[in-house]
This record gives sequence, C-alpha cells and structure tokens, in this order.
Amino acid sequence: MHIVRVNMSDLTVKTEEVPAEWKTLGGRALTTTIVASEVVPTCHPLGPNNKLVFAPGMLSGTPAANSGRMSCGGKSPLTYGIKESNSGGTTAQQFAKLGIHAMIIEGRPAEDKWYRLHVDKDGVTIHEETEVVGMQNFAVIAEMEKRFGDKVGVMSIGIPGEKRMAAANISVKDPDHKIRSHGRGGMGAVMGSKKIKCITVDGTGAGKVEIADPEKFKKAAKVFAKALLDHPVSGQGLPTYGTNILVNILHEAGGLPTKNFRYGQCDHHDKISGETMHDTIVERKGHPKHGCHAGCMIQCSQVYNDKDGNYLTSGFEYETIWGLGADCLIQDLDDIATCDNIMDDIGIDSIEGVVTMGVVMEAGIIPWGDGKGAIRLLREEVGKGTPLGHIIGNGTGSVGQAYGLTRVPVVKNQGIPAYDPRSVKGIGITYATSTMGADHTSGYCIATNILKCGGFVDPLSKEGQVELSRNLQIGTAVIDSTGMCVFVAFPMLDIPECAEALNDMVAARFGIELDNDGVVALGKKILKMEHEFNLAAGMSNADDRLPEFFSLETVPPHNAIWDFTDAEIDEFWNF
Amino acid sequence: MHIVRVNMSDLTVKTEEVPAEWKTLGGRALTTTIVASEVVPTCHPLGPNNKLVFAPGMLSGTPAANSGRMSCGGKSPLTYGIKESNSGGTTAQQFAKLGIHAMIIEGRPAEDKWYRLHVDKDGVTIHEETEVVGMQNFAVIAEMEKRFGDKVGVMSIGIPGEKRMAAANISVKDPDHKIRSHGRGGMGAVMGSKKIKCITVDGTGAGKVEIADPEKFKKAAKVFAKALLDHPVSGQGLPTYGTNILVNILHEAGGLPTKNFRYGQCDHHDKISGETMHDTIVERKGHPKHGCHAGCMIQCSQVYNDKDGNYLTSGFEYETIWGLGADCLIQDLDDIATCDNIMDDIGIDSIEGVVTMGVVMEAGIIPWGDGKGAIRLLREEVGKGTPLGHIIGNGTGSVGQAYGLTRVPVVKNQGIPAYDPRSVKGIGITYATSTMGADHTSGYCIATNILKCGGFVDPLSKEGQVELSRNLQIGTAVIDSTGMCVFVAFPMLDIPECAEALNDMVAARFGIELDNDGVVALGKKILKMEHEFNLAAGMSNADDRLPEFFSLETVPPHNAIWDFTDAEIDEFWNF
Repeated sequence: MHIVRVNMSDLTVKTEEVPAEWKTLGGRALTTTIVASEVVPTCHPLGPNNKLVFAPGMLSGTPAANSGRMSCGGKSPLTYGIKESNSGGTTAQQFAKLGIHAMIIEGRPAEDKWYRLHVDKDGVTIHEETEVVGMQNFAVIAEMEKRFGDKVGVMSIGIPGEKRMAAANISVKDPDHKIRSHGRGGMGAVMGSKKIKCITVDGTGAGKVEIADPEKFKKAAKVFAKALLDHPVSGQGLPTYGTNILVNILHEAGGLPTKNFRYGQCDHHDKISGETMHDTIVERKGHPKHGCHAGCMIQCSQVYNDKDGNYLTSGFEYETIWGLGADCLIQDLDDIATCDNIMDDIGIDSIEGVVTMGVVMEAGIIPWGDGKGAIRLLREEVGKGTPLGHIIGNGTGSVGQAYGLTRVPVVKNQGIPAYDPRSVKGIGITYATSTMGADHTSGYCIATNILKCGGFVDPLSKEGQVELSRNLQIGTAVIDSTGMCVFVAFPMLDIPECAEALNDMVAARFGIELDNDGVVALGKKILKMEHEFNLAAGMSNADDRLPEFFSLETVPPHNAIWDFTDAEIDEFWNF
Repeated sequence: MHIVRVNMSDLTVKTEEVPAEWKTLGGRALTTTIVASEVVPTCHPLGPNNKLVFAPGMLSGTPAANSGRMSCGGKSPLTYGIKESNSGGTTAQQFAKLGIHAMIIEGRPAEDKWYRLHVDKDGVTIHEETEVVGMQNFAVIAEMEKRFGDKVGVMSIGIPGEKRMAAANISVKDPDHKIRSHGRGGMGAVMGSKKIKCITVDGTGAGKVEIADPEKFKKAAKVFAKALLDHPVSGQGLPTYGTNILVNILHEAGGLPTKNFRYGQCDHHDKISGETMHDTIVERKGHPKHGCHAGCMIQCSQVYNDKDGNYLTSGFEYETIWGLGADCLIQDLDDIATCDNIMDDIGIDSIEGVVTMGVVMEAGIIPWGDGKGAIRLLREEVGKGTPLGHIIGNGTGSVGQAYGLTRVPVVKNQGIPAYDPRSVKGIGITYATSTMGADHTSGYCIATNILKCGGFVDPLSKEGQVELSRNLQIGTAVIDSTGMCVFVAFPMLDIPECAEALNDMVAARFGIELDNDGVVALGKKILKMEHEFNLAAGMSNADDRLPEFFSLETVPPHNAIWDFTDAEIDEFWNF
C-alpha cells in the first residue's frame, strides 16, 4: 500500500510510503487525519491550499460484505468546515486492490485547462482533457467506457462542479453504469477548483488486499453477513422498499417535514411512499433491489423505470423523495424520479438539491408542488449555470441569503434533511453538533427514536438525546472509516455478534487487536480532530445551533418545538 | 428626550423614559449599547428578533459644526455581526429637536403589508403604505415632499431593500433633496424585513436641544469650527476636491487597488482623479462644494452635472470612483457618476456595490472596464431584483460564493474598500479587526500612513500598525457617537485644541466632565461591547482575518504582501 500525492500546481505525481500512524486507518479516519494535519483550516476551500483526499475504507477490497465505500475529504466550500463524504461505486475496491491507501490531490493549475487523472497498476497519471469538458456525468461515463472499456471506474463532475457550485457532488460510476455520489458538502466544487473533470480507474492487473489473519477474517465475515440478513431493517425493510420505506414511518411519527418544515405530516404521503414506489417498480418491470457496490447485501437501491418501462433513475432515496414529495409538495413520483436522474447527471447533491428546492418555493420562484418547474430549474438553470442556477446550485443557504429569507433549514450552511428536529429531537442534536453540518447519516438517531433499534429514546422528549447522538456519532465515525455503508449500524445496534464481527474483521485485516473500547476511542478521536479543525477554521459553539425558526414555530401534529438550551447542546462535546 | 419603541409585530408605539445609563450617550455609543443589551446575538438579522435602532449623535441638533449625523444600528444581514452605520441628511437634527433620543424598531408584521412611520412633534405613528411600494428612492422622496412639503425628512429603501438584499442601504434625504445613506452592512434589508418602506419626519414645532452649559459650549464650538477650517485636509483638500482627492494620492502611494486588487496603481488615474472631477464640475456649472447636512463646514460633497449641465449625482465619493474607476477599470467618469446616481436611487451601498462589481468582472459576467454594462447591471438587474440582481445585491461575498471565486475582497463578508491592505498595512489591520467588517471609516489609518496626520507610520512596515489602528478605532467609536462626521478626525489628530473642544462640547451639552481619559474609556467600551456581540453571534479570531489571496499574491509596485501573523493581529484586542 502507498500514498499517491497529485500536485495540480506543477502537474506532478509522487508515490509515498504510508506513514506508520496512517497504516491501520482508512476511509473517514484517514481522510480526516490527513486533512487535519495537512490543510490550513482557514484556507479558501476552492484555493490552492485545500486538498481533496480519497481513501478507501479499512475493509474495502476485502471480501467483507458491504465494504466497498470510498471516503472523500477536504475543506468544504459549503460549510467551510472539514468534510468527509463517502460513496458506493467501484473505485474504493479498485483503489484498495491497486494498493492505493489514499490519494491526496493538492494545488491548483495556473492555466485555465482541464485535466483527467488516470489510475491503474502503474500509478497515477495526469492528462489534459478537452473532449468531455462541458458534459454532464452520464455522457462523461459513456465516453470513458468508450475509451477504456466497460469496467473502467469513473469519478466525475458535471457542469455545476466545473462552475464550482457548493452543492456540486463527485459522481461515481456503480457496477451497473449508474451513478452514486460523494454527495454532501460540495466536494465536486473542490474537484472543479483543481480543474479535474474526471478520474478514471483501470483495475486490470490489480492485486489482492492483504489480510493479516485470513482465518479470523473469514469467520468474522460470515457472522457479519448473517447479521445483515437477519436484522429486519437491513435484511427485509431496506431490500424490499429501499430507504423510501421511511415516508410512511415518518409521516406516522409526525416527523416528515412538509412544505419547507411547516408541518410534520404530508397528506399525499401514500403517493410517494416506499410501498407505492415498490409496486410501481414491479409493475413497470424495474428492479426493486440493486446494490451500489459489489458485495452489497442490503441492496437498498433499485431501478425505477418510467411509464414506458424505460430506465428513469436508481439510487432513488428517501431523502430525495421526501424533499421533493413532502417538503416541496410535488405529488408525482415520476417527476421526482426525473429530478433525481437530473441531479445524478448534472452532479448536484440530491439532498442539498431538494432542501434547496423547498426554499426556492418559499422564495416564490416557482409554486409549491410544481414538479415540472423543479425539473426545469435543475436541468436548464442549475445544469447550465445561469445566474439563478448559480444561486440554487450553491445550496439552501445560498437561496436563503439571496432572497432574504428566515425559514432556511441549514446548519453550518448545509441543508437539513428529511426528519423534523422538533419532533425527532435526537436527530436535531445530530444536525446541530455534527462536524459535517446538518447530516442525518453522521449520527442516525432515527434508529433509536423511531425504528427502535438499539432500544428506544422518546423522540419528543429532550431526555437522553445528547447521549444518544454522541454514541451514534462516535460509532458512525468508525463505520465511515471501515468502508461499510452506514446501514450496517442497524444490525450492529441490535445483534452483539455483529459489532464484534466488524471489530474482528478490522483486527484480522491489519493484524491488530481491536475491542469495543478501541473502537470508541477511535471514533472519539476522529470527531475531536474534525471539531478542532472546524474551530480553527472559525466556527464556535454558536455554529452548533439549529436555525432560529425551529425555536419560534411549533410543528404539528405534536406542536413540538426546538427547546434545547445552548448549554444542553454544548454538553455534546464533553467526552 | 425620550425613547420611542415601535413594535412592527403588533403595530404599536410606546414612548419610554430614557434610562439613566443611556442619557449621555448618542449615535454609535447608544445604538451599540441598545443592540448589545436587547438583541439576541444569534438571531436571524431579518427575523422578528432583530431590532433597527436610530439614534442622533450626542451633539446632533446643537449648533456644533458637522454634528448632523444619525446612527443606525442592528445586527447586520451582511456580516451577521453588530452594525452601526451613520449618515448625513436632515433626520438626526430633526430627531434631536423633536426630543427623540433613540427610536427602536422591533418585531416584524405577520401580514404581507408595507408601512410608513411618521415622526412629528406628537410622536411616531404607523401607516399602511401602498402607493410608493415598488418605487426607488428619488420617487419616494418626491412623493413624500408632495404629501408633506419640501422640508419633510425622509428615510427610505428602494426595491433592493424591499427584497432584503444584504447590500441594501437606508437612503436619507439631504437638505438639497439629494440622497445620503446609512450605507454599509445592509440596514436597508433589515428595514425591508420589518416592512417599513419609509420613515417621514416633520420637524414643525420642534424644540431646541437643551445644553447644560451654553457658555462653555459656545466657546468650544468656536474653537472646534476654527480648527476644521485651519486644517489643510478638512479646510482645503476636501472642500475643493471632495474625498476624490485621494485617487492621485493613493496611486502615488501604490495603494490604489486596481483590477480587483491585482495592482496598486492605475494607468488612467488622471481620468478619474479629484482634480479632473473638480475641473469637470466647474466646466459644467455644477457645485464643487456641498454639505450633507445643515451645519457642515467641510462640504466634501458636490453636485456633478452631465455634459448638458443637468444634475447627474452628488455625494460622489472617492471609494465609489476608485471602485468603478480603478478596481473595475472603467475610464469614463460620467459612467461612474451614472452608476453612483443609480445606487442612490435603488438604495445599494455604493462601496459594497463597487467592490462587488470588481468581483462580477472577475467572474466574467461583464468585461473589465465595461461602464455601460455596470450601469445596466445596477439598473436592470439589481434595481429590478432579477436572479443576477439578487446575487449582486447581496454583495461581494455573495458573488464570490455564487461563482466559486477565491479572489474575493471581504472581511466578515463586507467588501474591502479603496486602499490596498498590503501596501497600506495600517488600514489592513482596521479591515481585519473592525467589528463592522472591512470598513475604512472605523479606523482610518490612511490619515497617518499616507496623509501624515497625527504623525507618520510607514505604510509598508508592520511596525506600529496595530497600535495605530487600535487608537484610531477607539477614537472613531467616540466620534461616531457625537454625530460628527469622521473627517473631524483630521484636525483632531493635528490640532490639540480641536480634540479638547469636542470633549468640551459634549461635556457642556450634558453637564458632565469629560477629558481625554474619559473619551478613551468610552471608545474602548463601545468596541468591546461590539466585539462581545460578534463573538456571541458566532465569530471568532478567525474572522479577524483578510482573505487568503492577500497572503498569496504580492501587489505592485511595492510587491507588498499581507504578512501579519494571526498572533500579531489578535494583539489588537489586548486593551
């Protein structure tokens, strides 16, 4: 294994030994360690001093189930804090098998030229790129497959990324030529600032990931895989309905933010629910199950076809459907799917995109519920980079600032997803305190507040939420480091052998000892590094707050309000 | 004297006694005290919890020369910190004579209706307003003069203020029916958020401002006025050439930011200089001298006519001319004057507006030097509130964020004016540390770095700059409290009797003792209150920094760079 350092200022590539203290790290643990030690926290995120770091998870490239996620880190142009955003696709496993422990991209070209990085068994090379500049992601992938064959791995940015919009993501080809994303935090803009249009990965001739104790690994991997299948959420709910199973659940719980967080329930929930979506997919001969990377056993993705049975989108997530369906009041699931596909194609974080659309409607730019309007804005304005497109493509906070609005659901300038923090208070603590800005995946309290995984903490009461969020954020920081998808948390919360098996796989992979205390220590260390980076970048406790309107307006049906004191929230960091 | 409290949530007005600790305060000292004690620092600046506070200066309404400035305070929607922005015009003296120590506007109407506040000897009343909604400022003033007569005082917002753009100012009618502004920091957006289109002031029947010791006052006022006339800057330079005398001076010093802060000198400086402007004004039968309020002895304003001798603009300041002339490379002074007039009319801070325009050109939206393009953007886009207009109307940082730029001259999101901080390092310290965001008037180190008033501190050396800026910021906080314009600082720095006379006038006005120690203590107290508000609002030392590009790029002709360490800057607050 080695570190690849790509310098875009002088267009050179260096291969370096992996420093001893990075050897057993991967994923978020590694990107955060590198960013915290090498990036000046006050640098401009789009300037030459920011770095874009890719690191496969600790277990990526091994036979461990669900371990094929890649972490991407740097300073975010959306939050101006540290960012780790992980994605499925094919590149994590390819990187790991090619021996790339991490790729650190630094500098910025002086000339206005675009480049492609090519990664293969001989290393990384930089190539000037003209042909695909100005193309969106599906066209880039098609062109790269034409050049390098069907199996080529691709990470690319669309026009919003080229134009350095803060909601631009990095799109990653998945095994079925569809798109996954390093979605949140605008890492596509960072890639654009470094003038990298795409990264192609050719795994031909790659080796195997070394495992220090293969027997121990094999045994643990089996236990782990069985737990994934045995747990009702990862084994049944997600494979059948995808993440969109949550529409009806959150509606029932009164925590489904509706009309830009005015209400906690949505009248037309059944038109956009996972159950309806599943039936539609089956009827149109799509696929209700689909994995985002080889080795995924949960298969929460799907292939959603249009009325004529032609491909419309995949990776069609609850948060996207919630945002356009409930938060924007769009009732037609096909319009929502079309938007999802456009966001994949142009390369905009689909969570930031839909939260933004709610604020676009709040500003009166298009009417509530206008699905066709949303399609037009995404394709014609954001996709082409018009002035309005720049406003929208810079995210929720950007629209709020541009139009002088006060109902702007962001924390650290990142859009608040899919779960009302007033009626599901644990997730509110996660939104407030996460080093990533509002991010449900960084400490998914829905698990315990709503789904009753890992016990139950009453979502409407303040009691226990800070501790719950803290424990989940610590654990998630480690899961994000393993290359595992966050949904392995469900069986880990309920099946003791599952968590143990994950520890054992990591221990066996590196030939180290790892128990629960070690995992907790690592999780805490990651969070503290990230927190310190953010403080040095200029944040303070005052950034660990929800927008004021959550404390001024109650949300039906529970008429819940955000009532944590500052001191109660700040208790989060006492560990 | 009394406090008027206007509640826009329930549309009520209360008159309150002046609390003892506010009695001897005025201007910035009073607005800052009120904002710091009554506004929750973390509130949304456009929400119901922000307040808009108007306070005439301590000496406003008295016969003291140059004392007719009004302070406007609140939390800024541009910087998200505390703001005091003062303006000439007629209202400070009217408020003082009507016995209004301060007017505090709080709340926000629930209904989407617009209002006008009317201030007269019977108090303040709230009136629903429809006719002038959607009008720009000159039309509003004309309509109010039609309704209430020529002498009515008017404070109003244009369409950008109605649309809550963060660069929107509050426009104030001056004695000649022209416009002065509470320019910086977006207080027009705060007024717009409270749905107040304009404030009319009828001074009929107003009394006199009481002076505790009239003899002492009279004597000091005479000394003070003489000093203003005797000093070469306030007595000759400013009256003859206006503030635009600075174009040639800064060009010579290599500190005239050119092409969005790429260079320190501008080839076509003589086309836009104060000398050229003076000759043009005389030739076209305009007025080289003009005061922004009754009692002004410096008369740095002017009436600038077009080629046909018709009024084009007034209050035509160095910073505006620098920004469009040098920073945007526009060579035609008439185009610049037209932009200035449009910014008055639509109600955009002309400093924020021109710094923004440099970044608009950096983004490639219009070409460098395109005066007609700038006119069009201001009138058609910002003035009408198109999407591009919203981007520009939200200021320099907004354009930088929207277009993903790194050369964005702002501190605390407020545009950096007219003096390059690398080659005039004292003003760089002021930009970095001012509680107001980048603001030359908050500690005008140009005085001592360039004009050699109050001694000389080498502009290219770091030595002595922190102390210089600190002393000037402390003194300026007090000047901003007196109702005096900031230019009285020139004679105060060089003529000892002048500073003493100002102390004596304030002492005589309120019947108190006030020596230099008292002034310094007051100045420090104001700055610290403001600093604490900003920290509580979420700022930290990391916000006391110039943009990164000033540390990455040298500026010719001195090839100077911004080389202060963080610790050196933070030394500022050690007092």
